[in-house]
Amino acid sequence: MEHSFKISKQSSKNRARLGILTTPHGQIETPNFIPVGTQATVKALTPRDLKEIGAQIVFANTYHLWLRPGEETIKNLGGLHKFMGWDKPIVTDSGGFQVFSLGFGIEQGVGKIASIFPEEDQRSKIKDQKHKLKIKNKENLVKIDDDGVTFRSHLDGTTLRLTPEKSIKIQEDLGADIILAFDECTSPLNDYEYTKKAMERTHAWAKICLETKTNRDQALWGIVQGGAFEDLRKESSRFISSLPFDGFAIGGSLGRSKEEMHQVLDWSIPLLPEDKPRHLLGIGGLDDIVEGVKRGIDLFDCVIPTRLARNQTALSSRGELHLINSEFKNSPSPIQADCQCYTCQNFSLAYLNHLFHANEILGIELTTIHNVHFVINYLKTIREKINRDNL
Amino acid sequence: MEHSFKISKQSSKNRARLGILTTPHGQIETPNFIPVGTQATVKALTPRDLKEIGAQIVFANTYHLWLRPGEETIKNLGGLHKFMGWDKPIVTDSGGFQVFSLGFGIEQGVGKIASIFPEEDQRSKIKDQKHKLKIKNKENLVKIDDDGVTFRSHLDGTTLRLTPEKSIKIQEDLGADIILAFDECTSPLNDYEYTKKAMERTHAWAKICLETKTNRDQALWGIVQGGAFEDLRKESSRFISSLPFDGFAIGGSLGRSKEEMHQVLDWSIPLLPEDKPRHLLGIGGLDDIVEGVKRGIDLFDCVIPTRLARNQTALSSRGELHLINSEFKNSPSPIQADCQCYTCQNFSLAYLNHLFHANEILGIELTTIHNVHFVINYLKTIREKINRDNL
Repeated sequence: MEHSFKISKQSSKNRARLGILTTPHGQIETPNFIPVGTQATVKALTPRDLKEIGAQIVFANTYHLWLRPGEETIKNLGGLHKFMGWDKPIVTDSGGFQVFSLGFGIEQGVGKIASIFPEEDQRSKIKDQKHKLKIKNKENLVKIDDDGVTFRSHLDGTTLRLTPEKSIKIQEDLGADIILAFDECTSPLNDYEYTKKAMERTHAWAKICLETKTNRDQALWGIVQGGAFEDLRKESSRFISSLPFDGFAIGGSLGRSKEEMHQVLDWSIPLLPEDKPRHLLGIGGLDDIVEGVKRGIDLFDCVIPTRLARNQTALSSRGELHLINSEFKNSPSPIQADCQCYTCQNFSLAYLNHLFHANEILGIELTTIHNVHFVINYLKTIREKINRDNL
Repeated sequence: MEHSFKISKQSSKNRARLGILTTPHGQIETPNFIPVGTQATVKALTPRDLKEIGAQIVFANTYHLWLRPGEETIKNLGGLHKFMGWDKPIVTDSGGFQVFSLGFGIEQGVGKIASIFPEEDQRSKIKDQKHKLKIKNKENLVKIDDDGVTFRSHLDGTTLRLTPEKSIKIQEDLGADIILAFDECTSPLNDYEYTKKAMERTHAWAKICLETKTNRDQALWGIVQGGAFEDLRKESSRFISSLPFDGFAIGGSLGRSKEEMHQVLDWSIPLLPEDKPRHLLGIGGLDDIVEGVKRGIDLFDCVIPTRLARNQTALSSRGELHLINSEFKNSPSPIQADCQCYTCQNFSLAYLNHLFHANEILGIELTTIHNVHFVINYLKTIREKINRDNL
């Protein structure tokens, strides 16, 4: 199969649309959610779990796989699909987000994900990184220049360098269906001048990525930057749209509130080509998804559903359930009565409560199955609403 | 279905036999291996994983489930089968082994499992227990009298008491198909006099268990004790066989070597009824299994396959593979080329190596699937050999 994107229905009420994204490893109905498999595994799920859940595509992180096991290892083993036993579509990011997060996360205590996760979570993550690296001088960690970025590995502190050329080369070795351009990802704390400079680097790198790419089986998507500044987002949307990318992603700082994020989408999306797919990077809260879809986003990826499961928390239509709480100790009900996932069809809240109290891995497995299914199914209901034109 | 045991074939070369053990939740082909689900979960496996692997029965630990979540909780939720989502046969132990292990493990640095696992493993386990309990006076931990045993919970140090009556009551609430009599489990370091006294208590308790049991849907199996002393093992085998148990288990100290274990089996088994099933408690090394089968054992349970998986180790016909070793980093081969398990059918040693290096839960899941399948399949090949009379 060749790459293509067909829009089958456009909402009359907003920018939401139904589409079919075709890749060499199969089709994705859009809008859709992409479970994140950072290290070539969606944490705690087997590929057959993912298929049963209804996942049509997974997201893997170039930064992590470059460092471990290495893109050469994966290439020699037949590529990422074969390596991780997943024969459906895969998208890889450019590695940039992790590298820049390492920098601004540690220097400023915020990242894109600071707006998604509680501060405690973010702080403890940063603390872990600091501890691992035994960083004495934070200035040493990430050095950005016009050609790329030099930084230290979060695994062993060795100095590494990532450039647009290198990112594309690694992503070609990994062999995902969709790869992303290397961009400089900014933080909400970066000022206008810095954000502008980073956007200009991103634009220069976008052209290099297109020139570097050699594998015609992979689609390359461009990334819109520009922070939460209207003129920059519009400039970036126009510029990136002018390049021959196969799709577009909205990246970088989306501001400090949901309102700012919606503004960023409203500035950017009308300037992107109607006939190309659009991905909102790293966002996956249920309310963010529906607001993103209404604004014309086709794809979302996020670690929330899998991370919450490891934190003993299930998604439900009543909100997040902290499964270890005593209220569930004797409950014969499933997480969600009308949920068709394996977990809800077979296990009670009391059993999940027990598994988490007993520190059993199965608790994480079963809750991850439910959470990913819940979000995938949420997107399915959104598609049904678009189809009936009542979103 | 009612409980029954039918022997379909007897080896002409040794005491091995083929049988069908019928329980209210289904049949078990014997000889067979019982995966251990200590806390109402075979660690890292879903019930459907277990069914696919071919497991016909699982083992759960009364001691752990009594302490957490409590037998009342499980009873109120419809019993252990419903609680853990496993509709096939279950056997529970009496809780005695864990209680006495807590005592002699800590006091003497050995347990039955000391002969199975490396000393380091055993020591670290004991150290953990000591740490958890903040034990100042080890004498306080386990107090045995003729009516039962008083000890402190490994979870929170509260004082608890287990008696034959209590063990049967808990096991009736849990609702397994097969329950075990409450016995006093001795250590290889106990002398003849102590082992004899413990055996006599076990015999008295065996009668109390039979008298206490009220649930006709459960089979109650007796346990032969007597340590590694010939006259005691023979006396215990004769006595326990004389009681109306539905099956028999060989428990307690099996000596300090494989030779001594074989002796214990050769003393005990000829004195047990031919027409009743026989279970060798806590043993499951591959060589121990084949030697046990030849001596007339029908069922084995052991934590080795699941524990090895959590320790990054796979069973194979080439021995144990330490999956994190660098020799596997680039290997496209599965753990075992002719293995039909999900893991070997879909994933390479290189991928498993990566998952363990990356601390991914999926590594444990996939290796557990393989290891349990490997032992279950090993028993299947043993049954085929018995059927051809060439074991």
